[in-house]
Amino acid sequence: MTDAADLTARLIRCPSVTPEEGGALVLLAEMLGKAGFDVHRVDRNGTPNLFARWGAKGVRTFGFNGHTDVVPPGDLGSWSHPPFGGHVEDGIIWGRGATDMKSGVAAFTAAAIDFVTLTPPDGAVILTITGDEEGASKDGTPALLDWMTEQGERMDVCVVGEPSNPDQMGEMMKIGRRGSVTFHITATGIQGHAAYPHRANNPLHALTRYLNELIAAPLDQGTDHFDPTGLQITTIDCGNPASNVIPETATAVVNIRFNDLHSGASLIHDLTARADKLSAETGVALKIAADISGEAFLTEPGPFVDLVRDVVTAECGRQPVLSTSGGTSDARYIKDHCPVVEFGLVGHFMHQVDERVPENQVRQLKDIYQRILERYFA
Amino acid sequence: MTDAADLTARLIRCPSVTPEEGGALVLLAEMLGKAGFDVHRVDRNGTPNLFARWGAKGVRTFGFNGHTDVVPPGDLGSWSHPPFGGHVEDGIIWGRGATDMKSGVAAFTAAAIDFVTLTPPDGAVILTITGDEEGASKDGTPALLDWMTEQGERMDVCVVGEPSNPDQMGEMMKIGRRGSVTFHITATGIQGHAAYPHRANNPLHALTRYLNELIAAPLDQGTDHFDPTGLQITTIDCGNPASNVIPETATAVVNIRFNDLHSGASLIHDLTARADKLSAETGVALKIAADISGEAFLTEPGPFVDLVRDVVTAECGRQPVLSTSGGTSDARYIKDHCPVVEFGLVGHFMHQVDERVPENQVRQLKDIYQRILERYFA
Repeated sequence: MTDAADLTARLIRCPSVTPEEGGALVLLAEMLGKAGFDVHRVDRNGTPNLFARWGAKGVRTFGFNGHTDVVPPGDLGSWSHPPFGGHVEDGIIWGRGATDMKSGVAAFTAAAIDFVTLTPPDGAVILTITGDEEGASKDGTPALLDWMTEQGERMDVCVVGEPSNPDQMGEMMKIGRRGSVTFHITATGIQGHAAYPHRANNPLHALTRYLNELIAAPLDQGTDHFDPTGLQITTIDCGNPASNVIPETATAVVNIRFNDLHSGASLIHDLTARADKLSAETGVALKIAADISGEAFLTEPGPFVDLVRDVVTAECGRQPVLSTSGGTSDARYIKDHCPVVEFGLVGHFMHQVDERVPENQVRQLKDIYQRILERYFA
Repeated sequence: MTDAADLTARLIRCPSVTPEEGGALVLLAEMLGKAGFDVHRVDRNGTPNLFARWGAKGVRTFGFNGHTDVVPPGDLGSWSHPPFGGHVEDGIIWGRGATDMKSGVAAFTAAAIDFVTLTPPDGAVILTITGDEEGASKDGTPALLDWMTEQGERMDVCVVGEPSNPDQMGEMMKIGRRGSVTFHITATGIQGHAAYPHRANNPLHALTRYLNELIAAPLDQGTDHFDPTGLQITTIDCGNPASNVIPETATAVVNIRFNDLHSGASLIHDLTARADKLSAETGVALKIAADISGEAFLTEPGPFVDLVRDVVTAECGRQPVLSTSGGTSDARYIKDHCPVVEFGLVGHFMHQVDERVPENQVRQLKDIYQRILERYFA
């Protein structure tokens, strides 16, 4: 039996602050190799990544995804135990990555090794583990997926082991995420004296009308698995110090968190069309530059989601909510490859000083992952 | 006969840049005293002012108002002739104050002296001349009016001799002015993450709604003698650099140029009430600080306005428009004392390098003022 708690402590002792490998992927590669996995380092542009498959290529395949890189520890003096010491005391493992997410990687690695060793399945298990999820992440999980496509490797389903529970094990699993797009709006009119507006064209009036249109009505009412799309004006700036002068230009930034009724492109099209219409109407040029941080995605509830939910419910004694809330994760890349859900530990202490996790929570997560594998291949 | 053109040149030779008296009021006091006027210096807080009355106190009285102070000449090297030289060549008087408004003061002083000397009226003529109209003007014409009230002095009507014509003599006289009030609006909400707006309260959304309400409909359609009230947003500022953060505060400035349907107080009441309503509705605190630069006023067309208009029409061959446009003048103080109109020279070159005026224009203005006095006392 592989102890996921012990493996977590050993991984914490590898100082793998992004983009350092720190020995974490080397340790996992060695363990997985010994257990009969076919192991490849898939580094790209200096970013370390690990691919491991047990079983044949092209058969029914279950995947896990995670990362061993961690955010910096900050002020070392603020830590009760050294952040890379892997100190264990009274059933608690201390250190950077204890929850996000060396514990998750340890749990699915231990579960996969024990599963294929004790009950070899009629199928394959693939682990994709990156050393860059906390950074730019362009050469992390995307590099692994690109390489897999080139090699003809594929997963039928995938679980990302990121912390998914707000407070208690089993409360929440994630089956998608809202998308995010940011608009930079520049309004250019004609400067002039506030007493003679007919000789000027106030960009702030067109910009105010535009923004008011955007916030006047919600973009939608939400969908079965998503909250309503949210739009926030995050800044408006002009910097005109003279109250008797109509300014020439003003700018605003709008961020939209959107559900599966929209795409980044559809929102850019919509907001640009509205700006063009108002520009034509007012004579103030409203120019838009947009930046899509991520598209909305959803793994529709069905057999795979049900399987994970049923196992979690049985192991934790509560049925997890199917959520699409929260920030981004590498699930946003994997969703283009195969159905993906996220389930992991309680997210307390992520990115904080004195990050820590109970040993028994890591062991419980390993049991959940192992049960998921058993059910999937049953 | 008193030559207004010669007097203009002599006044220009007095270097009376605000707040310097420069000899201008001393010169006028001497001339007026010799002509039988009762002359008083009414200085207040170092600001020089001149009061002069011909005739008895308390009888039917015609008033003129003007100022001898001028704005600084700027770069002396840019002037074709020294700004305080009073140079006359080819019928043109050169120098600072040639149009704004030593010429106007010279014209009404010469007109008043010749009128009372040649055709002594059954009534009185008062001249109020200040040395601070271009500056703060708090101790200029207001000081003269305060002193007059204390002394039981009063005018029945008053002409301010400021330049009033855009291009040609006789085009325009002014019978009032729009008011001006500036609002500084601060919106305070609750900061938060753009992805979790339910935990925040975006001040920019309330501010946008508020400003959009203000610009959505005109405040009025104008009145018989006034343009519609105009409202301009002159700046909106937030300075939030993070597109994933909802800011805590944002500010805006709004300037309103208002006609005689409003007062500064009525607009402050209206905009504050709207802000309070929206604050209660949104939970975002919208605080307003307002600054009234001047109230709207109008000298209703009637016998006095008709008299001035008829004389101007006869002398210039064109009927002047009755206007309420333009910036402020000391008429805004005098309107609380008696009916006031403004008629003077063409305003070209005001505050500019090479300020200058044709001699015959100054003499024509003197004739107009003298004819106004004759008609008034006829």
